[in-house]
Amino acid sequence: MTARHESAGPTTLVLGAAELSLLLERVGRDRIMDLMIERLGARTREHDADTVAVRARDGFRYDKPDLGLVEWMPTHEAGGPVVVKMVGYHPTNPVQRALPSVIATSSMWDTETGHLVAIADATLLTALRTGAASGLATELMAIDGPVDVGLVGLGAQAVTQLHAITRVREIRSVVGLDADPDVAESFAGRVRFLGLDVEILPVESAATIASDVDVLCTCTSVDIGDGPVIGDVPTRPGLHVNAVGADFPGKVELPGGLVERALVVPDTVEQCLVEGECQQLERAAVGPELYEVAQQRDGTEAFRRRLTVFDSTGWAVEDDVALRLAIELARRHDVGIEIEIERLPADPYDPYGAASGTRRA
Amino acid sequence: MTARHESAGPTTLVLGAAELSLLLERVGRDRIMDLMIERLGARTREHDADTVAVRARDGFRYDKPDLGLVEWMPTHEAGGPVVVKMVGYHPTNPVQRALPSVIATSSMWDTETGHLVAIADATLLTALRTGAASGLATELMAIDGPVDVGLVGLGAQAVTQLHAITRVREIRSVVGLDADPDVAESFAGRVRFLGLDVEILPVESAATIASDVDVLCTCTSVDIGDGPVIGDVPTRPGLHVNAVGADFPGKVELPGGLVERALVVPDTVEQCLVEGECQQLERAAVGPELYEVAQQRDGTEAFRRRLTVFDSTGWAVEDDVALRLAIELARRHDVGIEIEIERLPADPYDPYGAASGTRRA
Repeated sequence: MTARHESAGPTTLVLGAAELSLLLERVGRDRIMDLMIERLGARTREHDADTVAVRARDGFRYDKPDLGLVEWMPTHEAGGPVVVKMVGYHPTNPVQRALPSVIATSSMWDTETGHLVAIADATLLTALRTGAASGLATELMAIDGPVDVGLVGLGAQAVTQLHAITRVREIRSVVGLDADPDVAESFAGRVRFLGLDVEILPVESAATIASDVDVLCTCTSVDIGDGPVIGDVPTRPGLHVNAVGADFPGKVELPGGLVERALVVPDTVEQCLVEGECQQLERAAVGPELYEVAQQRDGTEAFRRRLTVFDSTGWAVEDDVALRLAIELARRHDVGIEIEIERLPADPYDPYGAASGTRRA
Repeated sequence: MTARHESAGPTTLVLGAAELSLLLERVGRDRIMDLMIERLGARTREHDADTVAVRARDGFRYDKPDLGLVEWMPTHEAGGPVVVKMVGYHPTNPVQRALPSVIATSSMWDTETGHLVAIADATLLTALRTGAASGLATELMAIDGPVDVGLVGLGAQAVTQLHAITRVREIRSVVGLDADPDVAESFAGRVRFLGLDVEILPVESAATIASDVDVLCTCTSVDIGDGPVIGDVPTRPGLHVNAVGADFPGKVELPGGLVERALVVPDTVEQCLVEGECQQLERAAVGPELYEVAQQRDGTEAFRRRLTVFDSTGWAVEDDVALRLAIELARRHDVGIEIEIERLPADPYDPYGAASGTRRA
């Protein structure tokens, strides 16, 4: 699989569609998810907000030919590489172009030289890291024993949410629902690899689903102003909610009452106040960020007994962890394409001169 | 040269070191430079600041392991693609790592779908577009007749500066100087393809060089606070200066007196006020931007008679023009590597499922 060209210049590792499919096959889904949760756990425990620079998400939004945006999420850990995830979001893609609405790539630059080390698909990596973040949050804050799991929204995110939870907790039962009957029906097939029975509930059960589970994941594509997507009902002691769907000002999935009763743990508080469940709270009422929970000296037993909400809007550090892991696995399993993308002249003063590498087709 | 894999998913065009070398060979340096000047001219004449979004250059700067930065320059023309140039600047590269100090790539996203259309080396493209910008400025603002050309600083930029000028004016003579004797000595070899005699002047001639030429290019790597690099002397009527080297707060190449007497035309005024020769002027004293000169209804005869300075700090629109031209030429000459980078699942709700393309190695 690895194609190396004769070259004297530095090469860029490309991990495309085929390479990531091959990694899934060689490493296995469970092992990749375990590693993703483990690495994210290690990274949050070490996280120092003073040495990690994360730029606020920025991008171009437009409404022609259709509503869409291209945005970038750059991060840099002191002494480490720069990682930039580029995300395209075009909601008319599935219906009009048979493409997913979100298409993403992640790239890494070496801060010793400025060389582009790698570029990889981030569509799969984002699904994995979003699952792993909820897996980590569940590990830290859900009750210990076997858990009953609820899923509201059964699209792509629900697959990696449920997968991640199976890696950190024994599962007693799974219930789920989706407003789209086709999506609800296809879910069992998409998570068959987990070997679990999934009970599909009627969509009306959203009103009460929070009463009957220990871990709840909301991962809907609710429209602005249309939330919440579940009812505000009494919950079991220690319920943990992974709220994944809110990602835009005005979008929320959880009832205000539940959010106010809960300890709300954002992935990154500034962003969650703007586009997550934290929109429903005063800043002072927001709980610690996920990394601060991971760094609790006395463990997280106290969190497990409380009603907790992980407010997951997407953190650039998660993308950094995901890309580093993909590169590590690709190198270990000899997967990837190495291409000399940068044309570095052998004589740095002669831009037209021979490139430092002399590969020719 | 074109490697196409069997695939159902959209592919990304990769233009790396070998591909750009091949394009130089197949299209020819002169033709590429002519096209770059022509396209930049057309783009500036059409430019509408209201429909082109250019984000201020942003990036991560650091001093470990050495001083360096990785920065991004995104641009989007309404209805067109998003283009982002990523630039690494690591001044210790040449001495410590036998690499150029500037390494760059440019990428393009389709704003209909969010798909990554292309990624290309931008090290060569930046040298070409920086030359082409001075070529266009010279075409618009230098005297008409055969010109005497002066070059201060004979590094990589000087090669494409001189090349671009030969494409827009008949050359009577070329003089040049550089503080580094090795760089000065190697210059004739690097521009031999132009078939011109270049007279290398002693470095002391910097004091008076502005007196004896019609077109002057300053393209030094002067340090912060060490400018100006030339003397303030009486100049010929209609002298046009391309000032290319200033690119950081505190860096200037031209004497304040000359800048004050001249009509200073920035590539983009906000940036030039911070890091170009415009640092030496009040905002109200700055002339029109390059695109405004190109859009003069009555032609630019009046500009040709005046002392003019093109303050070139690098404009994201130039990078957009350069990348679009490279893609166009690559497609026409069947050069490039097509890779399915984005892993788009055939079922958008099944992230682990088969990718839409089924290529296997």
